Amino acid sequence: MARKTNVGLIGAAFMGRAHSNGYLDVGYYFDVPQPVLHTVCDVNQSAAEALAKQYGWQHTESSWEKLVVRDDIDLIDICTSNKSHMPIAVAAAQNGKHIICEKPIAMSAAEAKTMYEAAEEAGVRHMTAFNYRRVPSILLAKKMIDEGKIGKIYHFNAVYYQDWLVDPHFPFVWRHDVKEGGSGAHGDMNAHTVDLARFLVGEIAAVCAAQDTFIKERRTPDGHMAKVTVDDALYFMAKFQNGALGNFMATRFAHGRKNFLRLEIFGSEGSLVFNLERLNELDYFSRADAPDTQGFRNIVVTESAHPYLNLWWPPGHIIGWEHTFIHEIGDLLRAIDNGQGVKADFYDGYRCQQVLDAAWESSLNNKWMAIPEK
Amino acid sequence: MARKTNVGLIGAAFMGRAHSNGYLDVGYYFDVPQPVLHTVCDVNQSAAEALAKQYGWQHTESSWEKLVVRDDIDLIDICTSNKSHMPIAVAAAQNGKHIICEKPIAMSAAEAKTMYEAAEEAGVRHMTAFNYRRVPSILLAKKMIDEGKIGKIYHFNAVYYQDWLVDPHFPFVWRHDVKEGGSGAHGDMNAHTVDLARFLVGEIAAVCAAQDTFIKERRTPDGHMAKVTVDDALYFMAKFQNGALGNFMATRFAHGRKNFLRLEIFGSEGSLVFNLERLNELDYFSRADAPDTQGFRNIVVTESAHPYLNLWWPPGHIIGWEHTFIHEIGDLLRAIDNGQGVKADFYDGYRCQQVLDAAWESSLNNKWMAIPEK
Amino acid sequence: MARKTNVGLIGAAFMGRAHSNGYLDVGYYFDVPQPVLHTVCDVNQSAAEALAKQYGWQHTESSWEKLVVRDDIDLIDICTSNKSHMPIAVAAAQNGKHIICEKPIAMSAAEAKTMYEAAEEAGVRHMTAFNYRRVPSILLAKKMIDEGKIGKIYHFNAVYYQDWLVDPHFPFVWRHDVKEGGSGAHGDMNAHTVDLARFLVGEIAAVCAAQDTFIKERRTPDGHMAKVTVDDALYFMAKFQNGALGNFMATRFAHGRKNFLRLEIFGSEGSLVFNLERLNELDYFSRADAPDTQGFRNIVVTESAHPYLNLWWPPGHIIGWEHTFIHEIGDLLRAIDNGQGVKADFYDGYRCQQVLDAAWESSLNNKWMAIPEK
Amino acid sequence: MARKTNVGLIGAAFMGRAHSNGYLDVGYYFDVPQPVLHTVCDVNQSAAEALAKQYGWQHTESSWEKLVVRDDIDLIDICTSNKSHMPIAVAAAQNGKHIICEKPIAMSAAEAKTMYEAAEEAGVRHMTAFNYRRVPSILLAKKMIDEGKIGKIYHFNAVYYQDWLVDPHFPFVWRHDVKEGGSGAHGDMNAHTVDLARFLVGEIAAVCAAQDTFIKERRTPDGHMAKVTVDDALYFMAKFQNGALGNFMATRFAHGRKNFLRLEIFGSEGSLVFNLERLNELDYFSRADAPDTQGFRNIVVTESAHPYLNLWWPPGHIIGWEHTFIHEIGDLLRAIDNGQGVKADFYDGYRCQQVLDAAWESSLNNKWMAIPEK
Repeated sequence: MARKTNVGLIGAAFMGRAHSNGYLDVGYYFDVPQPVLHTVCDVNQSAAEALAKQYGWQHTESSWEKLVVRDDIDLIDICTSNKSHMPIAVAAAQNGKHIICEKPIAMSAAEAKTMYEAAEEAGVRHMTAFNYRRVPSILLAKKMIDEGKIGKIYHFNAVYYQDWLVDPHFPFVWRHDVKEGGSGAHGDMNAHTVDLARFLVGEIAAVCAAQDTFIKERRTPDGHMAKVTVDDALYFMAKFQNGALGNFMATRFAHGRKNFLRLEIFGSEGSLVFNLERLNELDYFSRADAPDTQGFRNIVVTESAHPYLNLWWPPGHIIGWEHTFIHEIGDLLRAIDNGQGVKADFYDGYRCQQVLDAAWESSLNNKWMAIPEK
Repeated sequence: MARKTNVGLIGAAFMGRAHSNGYLDVGYYFDVPQPVLHTVCDVNQSAAEALAKQYGWQHTESSWEKLVVRDDIDLIDICTSNKSHMPIAVAAAQNGKHIICEKPIAMSAAEAKTMYEAAEEAGVRHMTAFNYRRVPSILLAKKMIDEGKIGKIYHFNAVYYQDWLVDPHFPFVWRHDVKEGGSGAHGDMNAHTVDLARFLVGEIAAVCAAQDTFIKERRTPDGHMAKVTVDDALYFMAKFQNGALGNFMATRFAHGRKNFLRLEIFGSEGSLVFNLERLNELDYFSRADAPDTQGFRNIVVTESAHPYLNLWWPPGHIIGWEHTFIHEIGDLLRAIDNGQGVKADFYDGYRCQQVLDAAWESSLNNKWMAIPEK
Repeated sequence: MARKTNVGLIGAAFMGRAHSNGYLDVGYYFDVPQPVLHTVCDVNQSAAEALAKQYGWQHTESSWEKLVVRDDIDLIDICTSNKSHMPIAVAAAQNGKHIICEKPIAMSAAEAKTMYEAAEEAGVRHMTAFNYRRVPSILLAKKMIDEGKIGKIYHFNAVYYQDWLVDPHFPFVWRHDVKEGGSGAHGDMNAHTVDLARFLVGEIAAVCAAQDTFIKERRTPDGHMAKVTVDDALYFMAKFQNGALGNFMATRFAHGRKNFLRLEIFGSEGSLVFNLERLNELDYFSRADAPDTQGFRNIVVTESAHPYLNLWWPPGHIIGWEHTFIHEIGDLLRAIDNGQGVKADFYDGYRCQQVLDAAWESSLNNKWMAIPEK
Repeated sequence: MARKTNVGLIGAAFMGRAHSNGYLDVGYYFDVPQPVLHTVCDVNQSAAEALAKQYGWQHTESSWEKLVVRDDIDLIDICTSNKSHMPIAVAAAQNGKHIICEKPIAMSAAEAKTMYEAAEEAGVRHMTAFNYRRVPSILLAKKMIDEGKIGKIYHFNAVYYQDWLVDPHFPFVWRHDVKEGGSGAHGDMNAHTVDLARFLVGEIAAVCAAQDTFIKERRTPDGHMAKVTVDDALYFMAKFQNGALGNFMATRFAHGRKNFLRLEIFGSEGSLVFNLERLNELDYFSRADAPDTQGFRNIVVTESAHPYLNLWWPPGHIIGWEHTFIHEIGDLLRAIDNGQGVKADFYDGYRCQQVLDAAWESSLNNKWMAIPEK
């Protein structure tokens, strides 16, 4: 790579912060050149400026259209609301920029496909920011599954519980408008668990969903009541192509659960259990253990032998949620550097979106929906 | 009551053992006369004799038809395979016997209704042996819900995980034959969680289910391969009449989970989490706690202020699974004594069976099924 | 054995209840004749009568001196306050009775030795009621240690936490009077952990202790303030003969811990962790597991392959605290039947008392105390 | 502050890495100028260069004597082995440098006092790097204790378990030589728990300790066997000035425990339990909760209302071990900026060292040792 990667970040809210932190730290831990925090862009100029001030972005911009055509930008990072992902990504690709895009990748699988094709055609690196693939415990789970430690998988049961909407006085924001967000808890939270399902188990063949909106109206900042048009919770059952049975539940109404993404994977040779609120741990049951001393092992995933942990601290010195972004950005920059593909890419975003779309439609029509084979 | 209750137990297998233990201990802890272990009946005479020998049953019998007509029997306890529940119960009712029947109550809701009507008509006490209603933690949860501590319930998510069938060499038994058992994991395990759902949340309005049989054939004791015609696992989503969203998963293929019945109940004011493998505990989150010291409370349900615990030991001295039967039988004998009704009765068994039937049919037809209103 | 064992129970309080339950149930699960609940004795006649009524003791008695000389009593069960253990046990032995005695065995090692010698001389069976040796998880731990799974033991750290005295309004009772109880938390709680230490690790060579009485005075039932002359908490460090380092902490001032007896055992090949509030579980770490999948295994100790569990229920169906007494009494009756010794016997009680005595003296004198070699 | 703080870091090993990370990130989250990573110094020049390369230190140096006299250095950060802490700190103070020093602060309380006096005399900011004071859960515990939520403290029981020395093939390093490290597990691990005890409970009045070295000899890198002259484990009991009873256990021989620092604090009104391996959590029991719904609350300490958490991510998005250094350095830089004191300072290091010294001597002499009153 002739020069350091110049990053143009679009979207200066929560995800913009997490990505900024990632860009700042990545070069100290990955063998990649430290990227340049070149320009942060937000339609809300003051938000862009605040983020620039906090993290040292060199420039600000309020028009993503201007940003994506600049010659001095190498990588476009899309952290905006879901509605704008597709147009930004396509424009970025057409201008030869590498792209990382937050999840859910788009408002529909059709949009996602457009993004994928544009990126492929442009020959740029493209990544969907499924950062939980880069939790060390999840990568360890993947490795164990690939090695056959769990055997044939029978069950993949995922929940994603949060509680920040259970307060009826929480105001109406864009996330409550289906036209802006596409969905509520579903796209935001099931996107993660569906991606982990595909990563760990394989493709999903069919789904059947139910959704509900428990608080029908919320007060807008300007004081009137507005109708909530997205789901507060969406459940779905799934059948995987390989025969596994799946279950997914996303809700923002689970009092006391803050960011509780739990996976329970049961196979013919063993089991795995993971919880994002204790992301440095992985529970593992092996039927190969002696019958009278079998039990779920609580693996503290902080050994240098564990994925990414050689970069960090000694055993038992835990890492945080933000490290998943450092790992993700590190792998992306390495891919940009060496010209190779990197997962999860836009194809993964697209495939995930197909499942999300099918579940959404199922929840509206009360019937099983098949996922396209590819 | 002029005399002690003479019990006729039908079915000398696992449940017969648990009930026997209950009859033996109940009088020492409940203010009811110690019942008489009069006769144990099993088509397998040697099984009946073995149980009689172990627990001191005074007589054995191999024909339930003969047992239910005897004048010296007051209470018929049905622990047989599901297929025979209805005919036994109806005959017992017609002969004026009080009845306790293991779950699932019958092969179908129609059968269950017949049982319920026969018992009501005879004016006898009738109980469905949903013993988990009498886990102290569950009763505490019920009390807390009734007091409004959880508020309006949004979610009831139940799993029942076991692992004893994941071994492909486990032989074919009657439980694998749909004609004998009616279903597999579904009737055996979801019966419990559906009853707890009704007990804690209310009636279910509609369900949508998926089932699978992972091991299609098993070897019979006489050495040939037989087709498994029941489910190894059955999942279903549910909508409650009161608007709550429900989820139920039963499987016998969850390696490392032995008798893992977990409830997660989320409401507008708080949450409850229960796990049968740690049945002396109940986790409770209250939004009424101060914001910076909120958290799930792990209640050790062993205080004398807790349900049934005044009968047992000091705080922290845990009770076991078998105590649920002592509680159940104690409440039943008291009801027989004072002539009042006792829950869960055959109506509860019937209503539960309606849900099970609907879920079973849903899993075959891949569509949502409504539960009759009553 | 020519006749069933006739039991004479002395002491009708909490322990009397737990033992009564054991006698009632033991014959249904152990291959021993059901014992006869012959006579319960208490200086408080109404307490004796109440216990007789609850559990079906055939006779009551208020004088232990009269009880121990009766010909129709085979086994004397001592559940009285500590002060009377020695005279009762010696008299029982001299009258040829088998004896089980609650812990701590005596007010001093000298008393305990007298008891041991009297029982040995009389050739009767003698047992100290260290019932936690018969928790299945503890027996499993013992087996694993004997098999070398933990290797050479470096650390044995035990706590016993309760909280019933933290309330300053809890009244003054005999347990607060050193002349009646000998000590407070120490004798009551450290007796258990010291016995488990001896059972699992081996003899203790020296101890150093500290004690405190946090509430110096309590109100008696008749309304005056009385000085508490026993410890509310007693800690001690220990050196085992085999080189392990030990730590013991007993307190009744640990808010929220009800009957929390935790063992942490660390050895050259692995570790074990146990907690009495979850007595159906045992945590086990093995260095023999692969480096990247090592972790503490949570063994659910309910398999038929686990100690005593073949007597009870299927996997995951937990047993309670009271079962330890059934196991203890079952083993005792079998020993009476076959004329062989049974552990823990009075020698174990004596050896334990030596450690307790040394710790008590250490806490008064602020110096290390050696334990006699035998 | 006229210019950014120029940092001179001495010691390029593990702690040097953790501090470097802190300097790099602190300015993005604290309202302090980003410090300058000016010079890293290590007697091992290649180690200094490697650290400089990884983290962007501008210069390297191999002589701390040269570093501390440079005019362009504002803050000296001491991450060397314990033996050199005192001379470096005194020289730094005499040259008007602010100082942060790793724990244990010195080889003896006398050395620590010298450091404290030198820093005070020079009027510089001085900090002992007790980073666990800045775990949000610990600060929350401090706040709760100060508010009286736990009431009068009766017990402070701390363990610090690691397992990296249980392998007998782990080589002999300087940490095994008492002349270089002063002690083994004791100074390294008990330093943390003693500081937390002082922070949360108050001053310690007396201690009584036991130590052991389980592996007496280890092989040096050049192949000969060398005698281990430090402790592998050191336990001690403590009496606090305010009457609380304390217990401390540090060991590197606890298989499966990686960085397991557990605090159990029991008071008249409630209890707190903390474990560093799950540092985003704090368990809290309040006697003020209703009797039948009391239980240990598992507080997920990730709310913006929790200490430092407003700087980071939304609820449930956990932070890691390294964040404690960012917090520590942030507070230090702010103190440098505004000229006010910052805790833990060298006085805290000195007071902690008095306890460590007394415990060490106690373990050699087998007697209780009083801690000087100040």
